[in-house]
Amino acid sequence: MSLAVENPGRGAAAVIGLGSMGFGMAQSLRRAGLDVVGYDVAAAAVERFVAEGGRGARTPKEAAGDADIVVSVVVNAAQTEAVLFGPDGIAEAMKPGAVFVSSATMDPAIARNLSQRLEALGRHYLDAPISGGAARAAKGELTIMASGSAEAFAAARPALDAMAAKVYELGDAAGTGAAFKMINQLLAGVHIAAACEAISFAAKQGLDLQKVYEVITASAGNSWMFENRIPHVLAGDYTPLSAIEIFVKDLGIVQDMARAERYPVPLVAAALQMYLAASGAGMGRDDDSSLARLYAQLSGAALPGIDKA
Amino acid sequence: MSLAVENPGRGAAAVIGLGSMGFGMAQSLRRAGLDVVGYDVAAAAVERFVAEGGRGARTPKEAAGDADIVVSVVVNAAQTEAVLFGPDGIAEAMKPGAVFVSSATMDPAIARNLSQRLEALGRHYLDAPISGGAARAAKGELTIMASGSAEAFAAARPALDAMAAKVYELGDAAGTGAAFKMINQLLAGVHIAAACEAISFAAKQGLDLQKVYEVITASAGNSWMFENRIPHVLAGDYTPLSAIEIFVKDLGIVQDMARAERYPVPLVAAALQMYLAASGAGMGRDDDSSLARLYAQLSGAALPGIDKA
Repeated sequence: MSLAVENPGRGAAAVIGLGSMGFGMAQSLRRAGLDVVGYDVAAAAVERFVAEGGRGARTPKEAAGDADIVVSVVVNAAQTEAVLFGPDGIAEAMKPGAVFVSSATMDPAIARNLSQRLEALGRHYLDAPISGGAARAAKGELTIMASGSAEAFAAARPALDAMAAKVYELGDAAGTGAAFKMINQLLAGVHIAAACEAISFAAKQGLDLQKVYEVITASAGNSWMFENRIPHVLAGDYTPLSAIEIFVKDLGIVQDMARAERYPVPLVAAALQMYLAASGAGMGRDDDSSLARLYAQLSGAALPGIDKA
Repeated sequence: MSLAVENPGRGAAAVIGLGSMGFGMAQSLRRAGLDVVGYDVAAAAVERFVAEGGRGARTPKEAAGDADIVVSVVVNAAQTEAVLFGPDGIAEAMKPGAVFVSSATMDPAIARNLSQRLEALGRHYLDAPISGGAARAAKGELTIMASGSAEAFAAARPALDAMAAKVYELGDAAGTGAAFKMINQLLAGVHIAAACEAISFAAKQGLDLQKVYEVITASAGNSWMFENRIPHVLAGDYTPLSAIEIFVKDLGIVQDMARAERYPVPLVAAALQMYLAASGAGMGRDDDSSLARLYAQLSGAALPGIDKA
């Protein structure tokens, strides 16, 4: 007996994109009793979802055709547009009145554009970028920064409740959720760069780095990112939990938005150059704390495990 | 009956510099039972200390002559050097075996130099930069990042206990405390600039700034400084709790240290330019959250109370 039959009132959902975030979100939806179909461009990801009890689809259209809620967990605006309006786009295959829940981080102007085009076809769009890593996705404990019409929120509610510990309702139009996410990414990206600039400078001076971590996390110089990322540097472990390329992308979006609005972002610009340099130096797919290795390489500072890099 | 007679074993202390921090530290020393003499270049500050029950001195030498512990709470390295070795310097007037507790933020190399010169004269030097505002100074709840010889720590102990909630013992030579403080200032200065870059960018996009504060302080983009300073921006109140000029000074020290060590600090450099621009635009003595006003002026973003600025 399927979960959907056990909880018929919960409705049917499709998840497009079964990466580290989407897989966990799909499992959270199943756990909450929704009938979930998963799709990914990588067949292996779909097979894994099926092996763990989910239903798989061969195309986005096949996944979306019967869904009341389509949750899109792709990487960026271009992929989101392709899912909706590309050659195999689902926009017209979606059920009238169904909702598209878009979680990719993107320029708010693009979110507004996608929303307007989809709503013109009689489907709802919820601008719903997510925060929180794969572990929280798997537990259904994400933070979602959402905006959209009352109808979009109402249609998406069972999925939001299943996937998130906290849903911020930020406005009645797409774009506002995206804008809040970009403010968060601006700060997060700059703070990682600052944390790495600081810890490698401490190393350059020969300070006890464990002690630096202890003192800073108890002082006014602390940030969420310093506290979260510097342990990777102290362990010399650059296994990607979140990769350099994510901030190449996200600070790039912030810089482009700011340029279009004639708003100066000198800190973002400086940080973005460091992410680009790290990527250019071959660390693009490594953990974003790899900026500390970049600073060490540029200065001769000695970091733990640096010769393993 | 004086406090010193009530607690003769606590010893005698001098406080050089009775500004917002030094005044509170002197009061904390008195409350702990030390016999405290205060000196400041501003006679009014000494008079206020006397009016509240302290003892005043007319020169630094007069203050330091009988002290077991001299706490220096001046602004920078130049003033610290002048207190010790200037025309009216106290170095040779201090009792042999007494300790000089230096709280100014400075380049570690200068702290090492001052320490070596004072210790050559048979007096101890404790490198002891402080963290925490005037309110915590008054309550004896500062954080002190200290380094120095065992003798310097032992001699300074009654004052450290009286002034601080937390004393980090970071090494056996002057300079290490200063280096830790500079790492903290690097992060604090960049985080204030990032917070202001972000909140004014949110304003430029017309976002609900109270909601931005709520979302960011619960998200990965948070920092101690975002949480502490952005309420000033939301209130439109730039009364200086800590002024722009403090970070003109402190990020200047970091940039100079880094240049000397051939260590690149692109985020510090970008942030320092913004503090310099704010100072140049007339906000040097205003609260450091004034960087938000600078971004608003540069972009036309509308901040609360901005036309009062």
